[in-house]
Amino acid sequence: MAKRSLGRGAVLSPVPAVMVSCALGEETNIVTVAWCGTVCTKPSKTYISLRPSRHSYGIIKESGYFVINLVPSALAKKADYCGTFTGAKVNKFEKCGFTPVYPEGCPVPLIAECPVSILCRVEQILPLGSHDMFLAEVVEVFAEEALFDSRGALRLDKAGLCAYAHGSYYELGKRIGAIGFSATKKKPKGRPTQHGKSKN
Amino acid sequence: MAKRSLGRGAVLSPVPAVMVSCALGEETNIVTVAWCGTVCTKPSKTYISLRPSRHSYGIIKESGYFVINLVPSALAKKADYCGTFTGAKVNKFEKCGFTPVYPEGCPVPLIAECPVSILCRVEQILPLGSHDMFLAEVVEVFAEEALFDSRGALRLDKAGLCAYAHGSYYELGKRIGAIGFSATKKKPKGRPTQHGKSKN
Repeated sequence: MAKRSLGRGAVLSPVPAVMVSCALGEETNIVTVAWCGTVCTKPSKTYISLRPSRHSYGIIKESGYFVINLVPSALAKKADYCGTFTGAKVNKFEKCGFTPVYPEGCPVPLIAECPVSILCRVEQILPLGSHDMFLAEVVEVFAEEALFDSRGALRLDKAGLCAYAHGSYYELGKRIGAIGFSATKKKPKGRPTQHGKSKN
Repeated sequence: MAKRSLGRGAVLSPVPAVMVSCALGEETNIVTVAWCGTVCTKPSKTYISLRPSRHSYGIIKESGYFVINLVPSALAKKADYCGTFTGAKVNKFEKCGFTPVYPEGCPVPLIAECPVSILCRVEQILPLGSHDMFLAEVVEVFAEEALFDSRGALRLDKAGLCAYAHGSYYELGKRIGAIGFSATKKKPKGRPTQHGKSKN
């Protein structure tokens, strides 16, 4: 297993490619980022990293809020659009046919067409180099009614999410197992894969 | 598209589930984390978040280094094992049959069996609640020789990486497109999917 050095590239993969919605006054925008993640479970905290040159940078810095909208494979092309073009020149909600929805008391809109939206309040902005990290507390998570099963559990496997790895978008494929599956001798339950089929 | 509130849960998905290797003196350990990501492109910086109760927490805090090892689907069960059991009681390199490899000048071992390993040096530890965030600079990235094509480009699509989403591990599936594909009218090139087949 010979290894080759790649220098210091950013190759950590796969990562989420999420559409971040934001607003300031009448202006709304969407920016797609792959530099994002959960940083703490309790309280639930996330981050996104943005270049200061991004149109959304000033909006989020000023408003103090953003929404992380998870992206299903069916919306990958629109997500790519929102990461490629600037909100300084185009209204991305209109251009993509997305519906901005403001939940009660929420200063920035969710993208109604996304299965899960995570409203975040900025706590700190850390300048790191090309990107600044917006460290944020999760205020509230909203998910599509259709994604809940009869017991009220969120079935995120039914959302058909996509992932991003080293310059490409991918569908999520077969489910391999649940957390802790290395410790149990039980056969995996017949929970459907991302394609809605049981792998058993 | 009715929405239901989920409170403040940590549902950002899909995320990487990576095996983090670390060492202090003679002791080595591996801990699997899903709270990790890239936070800056130049210089290349990453983070991992760990509960202070984790055995690796003190090792990484003391040594100041860790290695993020990307996980192919074939190693998902071993990754799950390394996230489920504690290094205080078991030598995970031995138990999993992993080979620790110390590149020249590298104070912590890579996992030779992983396709990509990212050596990181801790810059800051931010206490956030249940988890502390280890913000780190990428020192060097190592990838499997077999993953480079004849032009020297890293073909990460051939690594068969897995993703983690809301409690389950998934294979990466079909490639949807490359970054910027929303802006081009060209047909996508016949680059193989994760399964090694062209989708064209």
